[in-house]
Amino acid sequence: MTSSADLLRANELRDRVDEALNEWIQAARPSIASISPDLEAFVDTLAAFVLDGGKRLRPAFCYWGYRAALRPGGDETADDTIVRAAAALELLQACALIHDDVLDRSDTRRGGPSVHRRFATAHHAGDLVGDAEAFGNAAAILIGDLALVWADAMLTGSGLDPEALQRALPMWDAMRVEVMCGQYLDVVEQVRGGGSVERALRVARYKAAKYTVERPLHLGAAIGGGDGDLLDGLSAYGIPLGEAFQLRDDLLGVFGDPQLTGKPAGDDLREGKRTVLVAYATEHANDEQLAVLTSRVGDQQLDADGVEALREIITSTGADVAVERLIAERAEAALAALESTAMADDARVELRALATLATQRIR
Amino acid sequence: MTSSADLLRANELRDRVDEALNEWIQAARPSIASISPDLEAFVDTLAAFVLDGGKRLRPAFCYWGYRAALRPGGDETADDTIVRAAAALELLQACALIHDDVLDRSDTRRGGPSVHRRFATAHHAGDLVGDAEAFGNAAAILIGDLALVWADAMLTGSGLDPEALQRALPMWDAMRVEVMCGQYLDVVEQVRGGGSVERALRVARYKAAKYTVERPLHLGAAIGGGDGDLLDGLSAYGIPLGEAFQLRDDLLGVFGDPQLTGKPAGDDLREGKRTVLVAYATEHANDEQLAVLTSRVGDQQLDADGVEALREIITSTGADVAVERLIAERAEAALAALESTAMADDARVELRALATLATQRIR
Repeated sequence: MTSSADLLRANELRDRVDEALNEWIQAARPSIASISPDLEAFVDTLAAFVLDGGKRLRPAFCYWGYRAALRPGGDETADDTIVRAAAALELLQACALIHDDVLDRSDTRRGGPSVHRRFATAHHAGDLVGDAEAFGNAAAILIGDLALVWADAMLTGSGLDPEALQRALPMWDAMRVEVMCGQYLDVVEQVRGGGSVERALRVARYKAAKYTVERPLHLGAAIGGGDGDLLDGLSAYGIPLGEAFQLRDDLLGVFGDPQLTGKPAGDDLREGKRTVLVAYATEHANDEQLAVLTSRVGDQQLDADGVEALREIITSTGADVAVERLIAERAEAALAALESTAMADDARVELRALATLATQRIR
Repeated sequence: MTSSADLLRANELRDRVDEALNEWIQAARPSIASISPDLEAFVDTLAAFVLDGGKRLRPAFCYWGYRAALRPGGDETADDTIVRAAAALELLQACALIHDDVLDRSDTRRGGPSVHRRFATAHHAGDLVGDAEAFGNAAAILIGDLALVWADAMLTGSGLDPEALQRALPMWDAMRVEVMCGQYLDVVEQVRGGGSVERALRVARYKAAKYTVERPLHLGAAIGGGDGDLLDGLSAYGIPLGEAFQLRDDLLGVFGDPQLTGKPAGDDLREGKRTVLVAYATEHANDEQLAVLTSRVGDQQLDADGVEALREIITSTGADVAVERLIAERAEAALAALESTAMADDARVELRALATLATQRIR
């Protein structure tokens, strides 16, 4: 589906986002490190986290949302500026991931220890007093907070002209509120137990679809001066695509290759995530299967055999096939909306490629 | 020291800040609550936290920093706008307090349960699965994140003209970074144990002095168009005053009346806070006293007798008297700086009254 020319462009954009993040962090670091040598670990952990790769999907949606809004010859925002504004999304994402790992008590991220785990380990290794886990959580909460503040400072300091910034800020605020709401609903589903496909889809919409795809597109389009029709079209493309993205994530969280996902096999099951996949299995399980799902999903002690048993139940209820079908339906709806929305042609080409990248990925 | 006319003005400002917060929250609430009934507890807990009083000191410093910058007849920002911008500081403070209670594992705030404790209790009371403490922490982290985002949305949506907002944002960003750094240094001191007056003063400077007094003043002055001389003068007043404020807090955290502070007696000692007070006592303790300080400060099981024993050690090292002296010196330096800085006369009168309020308070 994706031509090599598109992939080249995607890689080039990713490199430029990395470069913008690196420049911004290098400029922000000294004023913090100079306060106290104790702050070096604080700021350097965040810097390493942000600069350690990632797919940079949100900046890509933001950038192409911006390009979608441009009329021929109408580019008024310097390219560096829009890349910087788009890159700020990665700092917001750093906050979301770092706090998420604390919420989920998840010890692994991208194949290495999560931030709270790193600080808990440093506590154990050092000659320190108090509780190591509490120290790890405290450091991670504050590093996430710093990421949230940096995200904001990078966006407002990106060089956008005041009018473009004024158009961007309502999208930025809505996005941030929606992701916090989605995360909270996710946590509530975990403690509620059981499963509801309807509720799980709502979590996916707020936590992922709006946050990962729709709002980044809106942010870029608002900066580019896009009108209401474009924003509506980008929603019609972005929301089903974002839901498909999250549904793919749900499948990878249970069936993914740990080498590629950077998370232990079955981590979502151990954390008790009430994904659409798990909710579908719960709704379609027989009594015996339901008893296993109820007792083992969210069991922190779940071992490889336990993960395998849950996988078999999920498969035998047809949940994996059902989720693949939901992904296909949503990807199709997204692509149809893309074709029927008026926008700059090069943006349409890239957004088509991004739809494939987001839904057919293996990590 | 404070005339009744000044107190009236202080109360009036506080009421207007409360009103601005209430209006803002009522306007922001529906879009969240409409997503899911599950979000009502999420948003209402934050609303109740923010609207449940507080001294509104930060908005007061911001407002009077703004007034200090005004030239006679030069008020271009509508009064409602600056009150809204100043009130945003209370949402930031809500984030700081809610996250702080998670960091410190503090179960009490303003005489009632802290936010994470409320949600942990709701988990126990409901028929819910998983770990109640983890659920409480997760909810509190996300509610604090929402407060941080709301703070930002309230400031940028306050109605400030774009130029005033551009002048305000660097102060806003610096303040938020500084408070996260101060909080982190505070956590590091707690796990390092022991005590250093020098390091404890640095924590007080970043966590409290800059965040509570200097930066709110700067934020207001920047909005009012104040020049570098005014900002410097406000720093010379604000930093010692803010340190004095924190030192008073340290004394109240150990010797304060729980009925007035809303925190259990000796809570700072139980949490292991390495305040200037504790650091001074540690530096001046004999071997026997040092052994008690080392083993009992930060002991979550500390009872009333344990608190009393630590109080006696603190008093016998002269730490309380030394801290009172530091407060007096700083209050004096702040007032001297206030007199020698050119500013609007009515602002000087109010800032003089605020200095008394912040350093001689009993809660």
